[in-house]
Amino acid sequence: MTPHVPHADPQTGAAVKAADRAHVFHSWSAQGLIDPLAVAGAEGAYFWDYDGNRYLDFTSGLVYTNIGYQHPKVVAAIQEQAGRLATFAPAFAIEARSEAARLIAGRTPGDLDKIFFTNGGAEAVEHAIRMARLHTGRPKVLSAYRSYHGGTATAINITGDPRRWASDSGTAGVVHFWGPFLYRSPFYSATEEEECARALAHLEDTIAFEGPGTIAAIILETVPGTAGIMTPPPGYLAGVREICDRHGIVFVLDEVMAGFGRTGRWFAAEHHGVVPDLMTFAKGVNSGYVPLGGVAISGRIAATFDKRPYPGGLTYSGHPLACAAAVATIQVMEDEKVVENAAALGETVIGPALRELAERHPSVGEVRGTGMFWALDLVRDRETREPLVPYNATGEANAPMAAFAAACKAGGLWPFVNMNRTHVVPACNITEAEAKEGLAALDAALAVADEHTV
Amino acid sequence: MTPHVPHADPQTGAAVKAADRAHVFHSWSAQGLIDPLAVAGAEGAYFWDYDGNRYLDFTSGLVYTNIGYQHPKVVAAIQEQAGRLATFAPAFAIEARSEAARLIAGRTPGDLDKIFFTNGGAEAVEHAIRMARLHTGRPKVLSAYRSYHGGTATAINITGDPRRWASDSGTAGVVHFWGPFLYRSPFYSATEEEECARALAHLEDTIAFEGPGTIAAIILETVPGTAGIMTPPPGYLAGVREICDRHGIVFVLDEVMAGFGRTGRWFAAEHHGVVPDLMTFAKGVNSGYVPLGGVAISGRIAATFDKRPYPGGLTYSGHPLACAAAVATIQVMEDEKVVENAAALGETVIGPALRELAERHPSVGEVRGTGMFWALDLVRDRETREPLVPYNATGEANAPMAAFAAACKAGGLWPFVNMNRTHVVPACNITEAEAKEGLAALDAALAVADEHTV
Repeated sequence: MTPHVPHADPQTGAAVKAADRAHVFHSWSAQGLIDPLAVAGAEGAYFWDYDGNRYLDFTSGLVYTNIGYQHPKVVAAIQEQAGRLATFAPAFAIEARSEAARLIAGRTPGDLDKIFFTNGGAEAVEHAIRMARLHTGRPKVLSAYRSYHGGTATAINITGDPRRWASDSGTAGVVHFWGPFLYRSPFYSATEEEECARALAHLEDTIAFEGPGTIAAIILETVPGTAGIMTPPPGYLAGVREICDRHGIVFVLDEVMAGFGRTGRWFAAEHHGVVPDLMTFAKGVNSGYVPLGGVAISGRIAATFDKRPYPGGLTYSGHPLACAAAVATIQVMEDEKVVENAAALGETVIGPALRELAERHPSVGEVRGTGMFWALDLVRDRETREPLVPYNATGEANAPMAAFAAACKAGGLWPFVNMNRTHVVPACNITEAEAKEGLAALDAALAVADEHTV
Repeated sequence: MTPHVPHADPQTGAAVKAADRAHVFHSWSAQGLIDPLAVAGAEGAYFWDYDGNRYLDFTSGLVYTNIGYQHPKVVAAIQEQAGRLATFAPAFAIEARSEAARLIAGRTPGDLDKIFFTNGGAEAVEHAIRMARLHTGRPKVLSAYRSYHGGTATAINITGDPRRWASDSGTAGVVHFWGPFLYRSPFYSATEEEECARALAHLEDTIAFEGPGTIAAIILETVPGTAGIMTPPPGYLAGVREICDRHGIVFVLDEVMAGFGRTGRWFAAEHHGVVPDLMTFAKGVNSGYVPLGGVAISGRIAATFDKRPYPGGLTYSGHPLACAAAVATIQVMEDEKVVENAAALGETVIGPALRELAERHPSVGEVRGTGMFWALDLVRDRETREPLVPYNATGEANAPMAAFAAACKAGGLWPFVNMNRTHVVPACNITEAEAKEGLAALDAALAVADEHTV
């Protein structure tokens, strides 16, 4: 059965595309080598172009539309707030701002009860690092290879992927270390227990040689996202927490991607029973319907800025329209049990189905994840675990992944692809039928990836 | 006549305030020493609290609501776009995104025809500096004392006011120089011509000693905003342009505050007949109804990233809801001649009235500005030009300015106050009657400032 695709005028699509090519400068791209698809509309887990093609979105945009596109209740809340008070400066108490902060603080773990709002994740990370440096009076920040924390100077500098390289000049004080990742273990471990112990020992050694008294913060994605969805082994985050406590280091967890239901809990930290000192969020907080991010701050760090001014801010901090969207999104997630759906569907449908795909497709080296947060690590050779394409490959070297992505799209599935991986990161309120539709398209596309195995 | 204040329930106001104090961490503040006013609503040039008080806003929020609060056409456009497509990822061509880029590019000077969208001004500055560094392959950036460029790492580091100080560790490659400011001349000049020539010579000398081949960019606010609204003397910006051309340095103009009508032109650069290589914007682009900023990029710099990827981005680049608000705002500004209104009212009403106030009030040392962008430089002593309060004063030392601000509020006027200055920066579509109402309140409050003169 051909799905219904809402009508969209191809001529409009051509005009949208022409104006885009003339005037829009796109992120992370060689402007002359891209060919952006003109998108006419979206609803729930689907979007469509101007030429009659509809796609099931297994990317949630950039892993942020956790409640899918155009949720009517959140749309209505935005419309209502726009009519009431679209914007107001950050120094004032505003109902939507207060309510969003209250609802977020009510869901964050431990005593992360004060909310500093930003426009997105990068700024949240910038402010968390600033708070940590001022709280401790120390200069350095430790962050992990295989990570992404945002595009502004500090955020990109602590990032541990190639997007950092071009922007490393002009920043200082950041040290990268290796986190646990058993499938491609930096520590030659055989088990999760061993990987956990060795990763903690590596961190301890790095701290000892950098000087504990010089380190303001350790920042980690609770579950590294774009870098590969590597859920840390049991005990690792608790171990980092203990190390931080012992050395007076601020522990920052970045939940920009993992937070707000993605892993099947409100925050991924809950899986690990760990409470950081600062936690960054964005994306899922309001499914990106209006730009919003922030830092949830523990009482201990908030107290540092009780009598002493916090030297940071931005014009749109606590933007009323963005906060109203967050209030409505959180209410929808509660009422419609979106977090529970992510957990259940991940455990009973997507996880088992991906593991079954792995059995049949030699290109699948490992399946990792939980909730609506899954990665397939694609390989040329299951024995050696050689990635299907080299690290940071482009052009011809990346052809196998490009062929895989094209096959997904031909099958009506829009895939998330990064290096040698595809991530299965649909909306957290996707239905079982939608999940199965996407998994079937993935099955067909993996046959294309299989052709590139040894 | 008492103005009509829309009814707002004081109990709601108390609840809003209580949740704010419990959960909202505010910008640039000692959290325990602030007492945020709970604001119930706003319309046009006014806002009101929950206790029956209405204020004429001479701040435009943080100098961003250039069309005032709750403009019905922009509210309707946001509501319409929310119902159509609130958000979509940046890699796609989207109608509102294309149209916003086209309309902005149609108003920027020269060949600044490609638009990279961000969430706000700080991120715009971050990306402009990154583009300049990659375009030139050089590390350093020159920026001015008496400037503000944003709160993220690079943006705050190039800023030239005390907000930078706490965040200078961890960044490098920035050199500050002095811009022209005749009233408090760093160059002991007697005339604007002399100030211009000496400021350019100072910049040339600084470049010579830093090494022209090490400098990626010179960034200036076209008219420094929060730092004091110092319109550069005729010829200064053209001189900087010529210096940049001679040394292969990228010239960045920051129009986050000065752009989109504030000075009585679409962009302040038009007053000076200068086209930069990169121009940052935010605030007025959509009056902050939805967070949005960006960089307008010249053809020469865009070409650098034609075949080579631009290594920067953000999840909400070109956010459809924010772009739809920009499209509607620009249309409103055209249809209702908002820029022309700012120019005319500045020239015929506000400018003359402020100069008349300066004649009567000994606390007014200088009146500076154009359009809806004016500063009163308040002094203890007109002869010595000693500021009414010391640079970066707090507490008792700042009491005269605090008393002045309180007097404004008591008179129903919400003032913009920074150090020893008050800025007159109302909405660009304010009426003559509203302007006169505010100027009368300012007159009364200046009598309080006068008490602190010698």
